[in-house]
Amino acid sequence: MDSVPRLETPPHEASRVAVPVKARGLAERYLDVRRATVALCDSLSAEDCVVQSMPDASPAKWHLAHTTWFFETFLLLRGAGRYRPFKPGFEVLFNSYYNSVGEQHPRPRRGMITRPGLDEVRAYRAHVDEEVFLLLDRGAAADLLEVLGLGIQHEQQHQELILTDLKHLLSCNPMRPAYAPRRESAGAAAAPPGWISREEALRWIGHGGEGFCFDNEMPRHRQLVAAFEIAVRPVVNSEYLEFMADGGYRKPELWLSDGWATIRSEGWEAPLYWLREESRWLQFTLSGVREIAPGEPVVHVSYYEADAFARWAGARLPTEAEWETAASGRPVEGNFAESLRLHPAPASAGPAPGQPVQIFGDVWEWTQSAYAPYPGYQPPAGALGEYNGKFMCNQMVLRGGSCVTPRSHIRSTYRNFFYPRDRWQFSGIRLARGIR
Amino acid sequence: MDSVPRLETPPHEASRVAVPVKARGLAERYLDVRRATVALCDSLSAEDCVVQSMPDASPAKWHLAHTTWFFETFLLLRGAGRYRPFKPGFEVLFNSYYNSVGEQHPRPRRGMITRPGLDEVRAYRAHVDEEVFLLLDRGAAADLLEVLGLGIQHEQQHQELILTDLKHLLSCNPMRPAYAPRRESAGAAAAPPGWISREEALRWIGHGGEGFCFDNEMPRHRQLVAAFEIAVRPVVNSEYLEFMADGGYRKPELWLSDGWATIRSEGWEAPLYWLREESRWLQFTLSGVREIAPGEPVVHVSYYEADAFARWAGARLPTEAEWETAASGRPVEGNFAESLRLHPAPASAGPAPGQPVQIFGDVWEWTQSAYAPYPGYQPPAGALGEYNGKFMCNQMVLRGGSCVTPRSHIRSTYRNFFYPRDRWQFSGIRLARGIR
Amino acid sequence: MDSVPRLETPPHEASRVAVPVKARGLAERYLDVRRATVALCDSLSAEDCVVQSMPDASPAKWHLAHTTWFFETFLLLRGAGRYRPFKPGFEVLFNSYYNSVGEQHPRPRRGMITRPGLDEVRAYRAHVDEEVFLLLDRGAAADLLEVLGLGIQHEQQHQELILTDLKHLLSCNPMRPAYAPRRESAGAAAAPPGWISREEALRWIGHGGEGFCFDNEMPRHRQLVAAFEIAVRPVVNSEYLEFMADGGYRKPELWLSDGWATIRSEGWEAPLYWLREESRWLQFTLSGVREIAPGEPVVHVSYYEADAFARWAGARLPTEAEWETAASGRPVEGNFAESLRLHPAPASAGPAPGQPVQIFGDVWEWTQSAYAPYPGYQPPAGALGEYNGKFMCNQMVLRGGSCVTPRSHIRSTYRNFFYPRDRWQFSGIRLARGIR
Amino acid sequence: MDSVPRLETPPHEASRVAVPVKARGLAERYLDVRRATVALCDSLSAEDCVVQSMPDASPAKWHLAHTTWFFETFLLLRGAGRYRPFKPGFEVLFNSYYNSVGEQHPRPRRGMITRPGLDEVRAYRAHVDEEVFLLLDRGAAADLLEVLGLGIQHEQQHQELILTDLKHLLSCNPMRPAYAPRRESAGAAAAPPGWISREEALRWIGHGGEGFCFDNEMPRHRQLVAAFEIAVRPVVNSEYLEFMADGGYRKPELWLSDGWATIRSEGWEAPLYWLREESRWLQFTLSGVREIAPGEPVVHVSYYEADAFARWAGARLPTEAEWETAASGRPVEGNFAESLRLHPAPASAGPAPGQPVQIFGDVWEWTQSAYAPYPGYQPPAGALGEYNGKFMCNQMVLRGGSCVTPRSHIRSTYRNFFYPRDRWQFSGIRLARGIR
Repeated sequence: MDSVPRLETPPHEASRVAVPVKARGLAERYLDVRRATVALCDSLSAEDCVVQSMPDASPAKWHLAHTTWFFETFLLLRGAGRYRPFKPGFEVLFNSYYNSVGEQHPRPRRGMITRPGLDEVRAYRAHVDEEVFLLLDRGAAADLLEVLGLGIQHEQQHQELILTDLKHLLSCNPMRPAYAPRRESAGAAAAPPGWISREEALRWIGHGGEGFCFDNEMPRHRQLVAAFEIAVRPVVNSEYLEFMADGGYRKPELWLSDGWATIRSEGWEAPLYWLREESRWLQFTLSGVREIAPGEPVVHVSYYEADAFARWAGARLPTEAEWETAASGRPVEGNFAESLRLHPAPASAGPAPGQPVQIFGDVWEWTQSAYAPYPGYQPPAGALGEYNGKFMCNQMVLRGGSCVTPRSHIRSTYRNFFYPRDRWQFSGIRLARGIR
Repeated sequence: MDSVPRLETPPHEASRVAVPVKARGLAERYLDVRRATVALCDSLSAEDCVVQSMPDASPAKWHLAHTTWFFETFLLLRGAGRYRPFKPGFEVLFNSYYNSVGEQHPRPRRGMITRPGLDEVRAYRAHVDEEVFLLLDRGAAADLLEVLGLGIQHEQQHQELILTDLKHLLSCNPMRPAYAPRRESAGAAAAPPGWISREEALRWIGHGGEGFCFDNEMPRHRQLVAAFEIAVRPVVNSEYLEFMADGGYRKPELWLSDGWATIRSEGWEAPLYWLREESRWLQFTLSGVREIAPGEPVVHVSYYEADAFARWAGARLPTEAEWETAASGRPVEGNFAESLRLHPAPASAGPAPGQPVQIFGDVWEWTQSAYAPYPGYQPPAGALGEYNGKFMCNQMVLRGGSCVTPRSHIRSTYRNFFYPRDRWQFSGIRLARGIR
Repeated sequence: MDSVPRLETPPHEASRVAVPVKARGLAERYLDVRRATVALCDSLSAEDCVVQSMPDASPAKWHLAHTTWFFETFLLLRGAGRYRPFKPGFEVLFNSYYNSVGEQHPRPRRGMITRPGLDEVRAYRAHVDEEVFLLLDRGAAADLLEVLGLGIQHEQQHQELILTDLKHLLSCNPMRPAYAPRRESAGAAAAPPGWISREEALRWIGHGGEGFCFDNEMPRHRQLVAAFEIAVRPVVNSEYLEFMADGGYRKPELWLSDGWATIRSEGWEAPLYWLREESRWLQFTLSGVREIAPGEPVVHVSYYEADAFARWAGARLPTEAEWETAASGRPVEGNFAESLRLHPAPASAGPAPGQPVQIFGDVWEWTQSAYAPYPGYQPPAGALGEYNGKFMCNQMVLRGGSCVTPRSHIRSTYRNFFYPRDRWQFSGIRLARGIR
Repeated sequence: MDSVPRLETPPHEASRVAVPVKARGLAERYLDVRRATVALCDSLSAEDCVVQSMPDASPAKWHLAHTTWFFETFLLLRGAGRYRPFKPGFEVLFNSYYNSVGEQHPRPRRGMITRPGLDEVRAYRAHVDEEVFLLLDRGAAADLLEVLGLGIQHEQQHQELILTDLKHLLSCNPMRPAYAPRRESAGAAAAPPGWISREEALRWIGHGGEGFCFDNEMPRHRQLVAAFEIAVRPVVNSEYLEFMADGGYRKPELWLSDGWATIRSEGWEAPLYWLREESRWLQFTLSGVREIAPGEPVVHVSYYEADAFARWAGARLPTEAEWETAASGRPVEGNFAESLRLHPAPASAGPAPGQPVQIFGDVWEWTQSAYAPYPGYQPPAGALGEYNGKFMCNQMVLRGGSCVTPRSHIRSTYRNFFYPRDRWQFSGIRLARGIR
């Protein structure tokens, strides 16, 4: 076997929550995240919160209830014998996909649930919050605190989904209503394109050290990553418009076979939410319809479109190991949900030499890696083992978070995953290429 | 109210509204009907009113808006130059199927419209009501008064649809919520079965004389109706349970070819809304889940099931001419929406000798007649010509109204129509047979 | 009741086969028809005979075997105890839809049967033919002779289906192969358009007297038919091209609601088998691709297209009673399968005054009548009761036979039926209108 | 024949055909392979060869023609100006998926092509064979010889597909016909289960050295493969029956989410071609229906079933790198198409210590690796670049060949790929597990 110089630090194969959890800090964080979820729906009517626009998307009210069910089921009902469920039936209505817990109301029919109403779901949330605090006051065991931490992360995932699903719903209304007022970005020009490179090395991939991570980010392990270049910033609209103008959607040689079949059967000729108005393109955003800004990262493209664009550009998509290598050590800064912009923006600052910009926030970046278990991966025992592991087929990994991701939710080892044809997430493109 | 055509009199090929309309009485009737529609939704949340449970059914809010759009489009916008539409975009959102008026929001996507909200639709109603009164005050031409009368009838049709569509929606909720409290019927025993007969005759069929009717009830014309017998009352649950117990749903020889294919592909083995609970059947109603009452007319059966039951019973369904012959001259009395029972009930009184009972109300009765134009039928000119005529294919005629039909809306010549596979209407069975 | 003068002769409510059957003549007719079926396939390869191009169509080999199964099942197996089926499994493979007989190989999978091969099916035919003759030699009971007669008619129906289904199959081949060489029609100009009229009368409808008829043509009964006009000849291509040029396929006001939905979802803009070649239309026929001849009756239109054309032309389709009234007493002459033209032709002779031309042959003529039982209709007892009765829903009646119908198979009371969207039959249009 | 890369040697990034090709040997090999393809169809009727049983499968005639089209298109038409295509239209009919070459007859409609008939396709083959020999006689350039070699391999792939597709077709016939007589395996007992292990190492993966390989097996590259164990032989029927008896198909916790959805919607409860007969299972094979032999490798399972079985067994599927590590250096021996058994057999010989058995032949072994490009992969320029690269999404890699693979076609670096739900290939299971 060839020996390869180690380039990175040895791994800390720590347990997922390595240090004793400070329950007090966790309680505050719980409160912050729970409030933030509700705040997302402040400007919505009960009607906005009940409708399901497609099987992939869920109503906001369902998100509000499901995240609460998560704490009720995995924390309160395990915490002590005395807790009784808020209301019979909710254990079926708001179970997403945990077969180990029991039956589930079918996903495509989440929008049929007009009752309980939004007010009752808010009462459900308040009730569970109160019980969580009582449990913390009584002192919760370490494994429950770990579940609490997981529930907080879980709720942040659903904060993002509330926004992505709501965007889809509002887009189905021909009146094109807005969720929030538009916030202008300071600078409208994209950073110039360019490449940064990394040498061949045996890299440590996956999460190590302290801090929360999901099970799918572990075990931390070594992987031989050949030398590669990765784009300094995501692909922007002006570049994507060039691809379109060059007939990108009409040239089969640019597309994966499944991608070509998809764009033909779906009639796609632009990213999701793009609207043709006579000779120009507009796009629907959470702030209504606007022009296509040339310097903004292109968003709402499928894996197929990302892959075809890369081929057109003479490049390819990065593997997740390459992406993680490039992102490793970068500060988690960028255009996140907290900016309330809710749309990608041109890079607001120039790159440090040899470092990528916008690697976090703005758009989730498709990688060419299928979502698969890391070597030695073991899902947790019990129902929470269904959280991630059973989805490790047919999906592709995306990295880096987006403009609707909470900032505190993301990290360089974070693995998001969607089907190649999915477009309703805030998904975009960063190019890569080998070094020969 | 509606006058009923005298038996076998010569036809008056009158215009649809033969006598000068008294605008004042019409205004009061307008007000009554408009208020009744809103009252149907009083106990509903905005969430109940926005969701669409299947393409055939529309949200209550859509019904509230569409009926208003009808008056706005066909009355106010034609009434005088000065009326301006309440809000741009509504002409598309709330146009049901009038191609002559313009584009329509796709029917299966009526449930995507969370905005305008229920409150704005109520304001829309109030605005249009006010304008209608202003128009009446100014004095409306006879053709507009005729449209007003049509709009009132149209709104009553949608009152019934609000209830049928809402029932379907609530049935999709595994919590099985109720719309209204249950009202018991006085008597629980069905009238005894039996037959009444009519001689062969050239019968006058269709609407004549005064009073409102739809275009599809005309022209009044003669038809040779052979001697027949018709059941004195509708088929009741105890009889339908016998059919089921005898393997009715498993014997292909009882079914039309399309019916057999349908029950197999859909997995039907009982009427819609019937729920198996261990060894017995329950049914979901607008007042929640209840037992199957033996004496109540069976309801929510498709044409296929009605036809198969009839074959099993050694009978057949009546033609619409036979049905009309039997109903002609009977008083329009029975279990209608006004009873607030919202469910069929056993016949509350014995029949007059030789006369049917429950011929009006309780359940719409499938006939074996395909919905087709009467000889010489001409749809009205213009957009209102799309009201009925373009549906004269693939559907079967039902007669008599149901427990969710407003009493003042029905008459013996009234022709309702649905596809043979439709079950979400309050549709039931009355048998007939020839006399040899 | 108004009295109406009888205009026609009293009915002969004869049994279906009224006079004693001459078995000898029947045997000859059996032989002729059986040979004709095989002859239709003489120019076909085994490959042509095995493939199924859509669920509605069956492979020629299946037709060859199914018609044989019909005699085997309903004649030989009933004829005497000694007959044993030709081969186990055939009773499932070649049962079309007779639930009373037993299970059926699913219709959409008839094309999966590569074995038995065509040669074995031919042997099956020969074996059954021989047994039929043995049975006739032994002397068959009257009811079996009646079945024999029915089987002969049944086989003729399948002769037509072999041609219609084969045309569909060959049309799926981009090489556009021909079944038979083209035979030119003598005259290329259509008869001039025009109308003939009939007075209001109580008409006898349905089959009476001697000779074979299907159960659905009975009982013969009286029907009041109002005065009407009917077109002297079918609609021809030049007229249909005018309809197309006038935007017929783009004007919703011309279409039934279901028709408009169908042409939009299917993308129809011309009859089936029409091919656009740059600015002109061609059509695929059993003799390959040819130009559209202006004087030929338009063919391969759905009911929806026939209905829309009629509305565009300011007319309507005839009812089946009107059609039968017009055809009654006309000689059964015209362009039938025997001409080997296998395509409609311009009328070869002018009409007798007041009489229609091409009422038989050329194209099946859509009527506006839904396929329904005649008053007092009773299907035969047993499995043969499934022959016609169970299809009396959702289909429309066509009359008169076509250029692929055997001449001896058709008569004025003959009722054919297909779904409104079906186009692969040789279906065309004859207009009618009321007299006011 | 194929040389097998030496274990862990440095890579030779050679061109695909590294040494000068001996055209004479290639011609002989061409002839052998072409004859073998035709021989596969010797016992088939033209009817067997024309029908398409599902979109995934193609008719044997199409395979015969397509492989010929491959040589015509990529060899003869490039070889010299003078070659003219055998027949206009074939370039569309028999193009599989090469968009760069031109339009394609739609894949799901390959079974519509009754003409050209089987005889004409045989003539097409003879014509092209003759022209290939003429070209070789004239002396073909190295790049054309490379295409010839590729075409031979391509034809071998289609030999396997002829058998898999034919098996599916015959299984659709309720008569369950056999393709070939049954050949018994000598020994009926499976080798005992067990594990062999490999140490962590940087492994060379992919094809190096001489001999043919497909582009997707390159570039040869290093990959860090952690220590692992792999099963000494494939999973056999007795083990799979245990999984079934233990409720394997009814326990969601064993399944990937997409897998669970698939087995529920498809109603799977056993491998493809298994038939329940009262209380026992039989299976359909190319030699007809037989009992389930306990010691035969289980075959015709989807990836989902392979993955669920592995989870039930406390193991997992191997990665393709692990599989290749285990297979590296093993002789290419086993139960291949040449045995004419056409069904997996129990291992006929015990393993060498520390070495797997049945690693080649019998069943394709699902790996847990998604089909993806190797680092630095570049598809060939031109139309042949569509051969493999555009399928690198949504599919999983299978390794090792099967009982219907030609022996000379397989090697340890060979990558086959199918969708996780596909079952009609001869796909089976070999377990793996990590070493902690």
